[in-house]
Amino acid sequence: MEEIIAFNRGVPPAQSFPKEQLAESARRVILKEGDQILQYGSAMGYLPLREYIAAQFGVNSEQVIIGQGSLQLLDTYIKTSLQPGDDVFVEQPVYDRVLTLFKRGGINLSGFMLHNGSVSPEEIELSLHKGNIPKALYVIPDFQNPSGAEMPLETRRKLVSFARQYNFLLIEDSAYRRLRYDGQELPRLYDLDPEHVLHMSSFSKIISPGIRVGYMIGRKDVISTLSNYAENTYINTSYINQAIIIDFIQQGWINKHVDFLKTLYSERLEKALESLAHHMSGLATWLTPKGGFFIGLFLINGKSQPAAQTLKENGLMLVDGEQFFINGGRDFIRLPFASTTPEQIELGVKKLAALM
Amino acid sequence: MEEIIAFNRGVPPAQSFPKEQLAESARRVILKEGDQILQYGSAMGYLPLREYIAAQFGVNSEQVIIGQGSLQLLDTYIKTSLQPGDDVFVEQPVYDRVLTLFKRGGINLSGFMLHNGSVSPEEIELSLHKGNIPKALYVIPDFQNPSGAEMPLETRRKLVSFARQYNFLLIEDSAYRRLRYDGQELPRLYDLDPEHVLHMSSFSKIISPGIRVGYMIGRKDVISTLSNYAENTYINTSYINQAIIIDFIQQGWINKHVDFLKTLYSERLEKALESLAHHMSGLATWLTPKGGFFIGLFLINGKSQPAAQTLKENGLMLVDGEQFFINGGRDFIRLPFASTTPEQIELGVKKLAALM
Repeated sequence: MEEIIAFNRGVPPAQSFPKEQLAESARRVILKEGDQILQYGSAMGYLPLREYIAAQFGVNSEQVIIGQGSLQLLDTYIKTSLQPGDDVFVEQPVYDRVLTLFKRGGINLSGFMLHNGSVSPEEIELSLHKGNIPKALYVIPDFQNPSGAEMPLETRRKLVSFARQYNFLLIEDSAYRRLRYDGQELPRLYDLDPEHVLHMSSFSKIISPGIRVGYMIGRKDVISTLSNYAENTYINTSYINQAIIIDFIQQGWINKHVDFLKTLYSERLEKALESLAHHMSGLATWLTPKGGFFIGLFLINGKSQPAAQTLKENGLMLVDGEQFFINGGRDFIRLPFASTTPEQIELGVKKLAALM
Repeated sequence: MEEIIAFNRGVPPAQSFPKEQLAESARRVILKEGDQILQYGSAMGYLPLREYIAAQFGVNSEQVIIGQGSLQLLDTYIKTSLQPGDDVFVEQPVYDRVLTLFKRGGINLSGFMLHNGSVSPEEIELSLHKGNIPKALYVIPDFQNPSGAEMPLETRRKLVSFARQYNFLLIEDSAYRRLRYDGQELPRLYDLDPEHVLHMSSFSKIISPGIRVGYMIGRKDVISTLSNYAENTYINTSYINQAIIIDFIQQGWINKHVDFLKTLYSERLEKALESLAHHMSGLATWLTPKGGFFIGLFLINGKSQPAAQTLKENGLMLVDGEQFFINGGRDFIRLPFASTTPEQIELGVKKLAALM
């Protein structure tokens, strides 16, 4: 049986998990902090981890809430702060799970296409001028899922100024920010205007997704609303997991581990770009991501993503491109390069090109 | 500063947590199963634990879903299977957090009073006869929170026959079932009719609440609906926590640990009953619980629960009795005996009686 190349999985590979260190942290925190972390706790999350995150952002810990991944917190935000029929703007393509959440909440979505890796501030402004003012604009400025794009500084500034002028919330999803392989860090939207930005991120991509620790940072009133709803829904998320994360950080392991990941993933990115240049020229265009997990392929010359069955028969799996769009997406392919080996990437891209 | 006696906390005491064993389990499972449990997984939960639970109930693992506590799963059930305005029956008094969830879902609640520790099947039948047929009836048959009552076998049988005849769902919350200090086990509602019962329980009261592992067992279609919604909301709950639980069980530690808890809590129950007999006779009536965490005090002679401020000034804390009722409850006090020491119980009950 031929190996299946799972280009449908936007996840870290198992070899990236710092198992020995997490095992040591888990043992230590349960022995040392067990009285607290084995008990129920505040829905806001484990205070030492909240304080660490708060310090990173220069905010008060009351502005930080921890969830079972950041997606859950976004769902809670939608349930508590948005109403069915409310308008929300998103980039297109956009992270598919978030699209599902907004749709489930009955949100009226408008998508703004990425042009050369950025939404067009002019298009957004035009919409705002026409009185189409959203409750929120959801973006992944750093190494977007699924396109790999980095939002230019000028776009960041303009979005923040729109949010201020038209009084809507920018939801900044920052899951990949620390996985930069090239170039200089740009300011977060949150850094540009903490009042109009709800920042979400997690430890899924830099430590482990299975540990399920994500967070949101925002205005105290917004965070407090999330916390009240969370308490009534699940009391609290497990402090064990959160204590493991802060112990891992306090042991001084996080920076070295992120460096290891950057080396691992940047080699894979390089290989993916090589393979694409070799096999996909004339079939698609793509940007060179400076970080993250993904390269977005925009198919050209009327090409579209092969059918799932065809892919399967050829040992390939992809997420259906349409999943990343409100409308359209048949000409889009998300190529994840982090979860597959360089050999799988080369073989997979070659096979994919042969099917186009 | 006088010690506060926290009769408001229906939680296990820290001394009940098997810290050393959980620390050992955590280390072992992360080292051994890290590749899987540190990754994303199915929203149904960690298969080895689901298979263990399924075997306990003689069902297929497709009928078992694991959540971050069982409350979260109940919330998901409400969101996916009930509509605002739907009718649900509950016992009165009833677990306050569940009342909050149903109310948040816009559910139309009818409460059936506990008489001598049981809802009256006749009252329920009368309501059904009148055409008031609920979508679900939520009960805690074993050592109810907040009353401590055990549902008699005859009532269990009748509720199941009503559910069958009128085609509604019995939601059986079984969090305290394994903490029996006296008498013989009665069949679960689930044992009496698996088709009409959704069973929920957790490891919060027998291992640790902070580990946040609860589960539901039910019909495949019901569980599958929960799983789909869960995946779209938070992808999955942490397998690390679930792997720790199944390792703890596979090490053969669970039965001995439950025995330890029974000894610890039954001594506290005995002390609480002594203190009540000594201080509260003529002020309230109560049943002798055969298990669980709570004794429900039904105040008599027009007495009502002292005001929060009065309690506080006297070093006491209680949950407001009205929290456990749809209407009424000023004459009800939930006395938790598991989380406090025998000395605190005696002192607390004495103080409470002095305020009545």
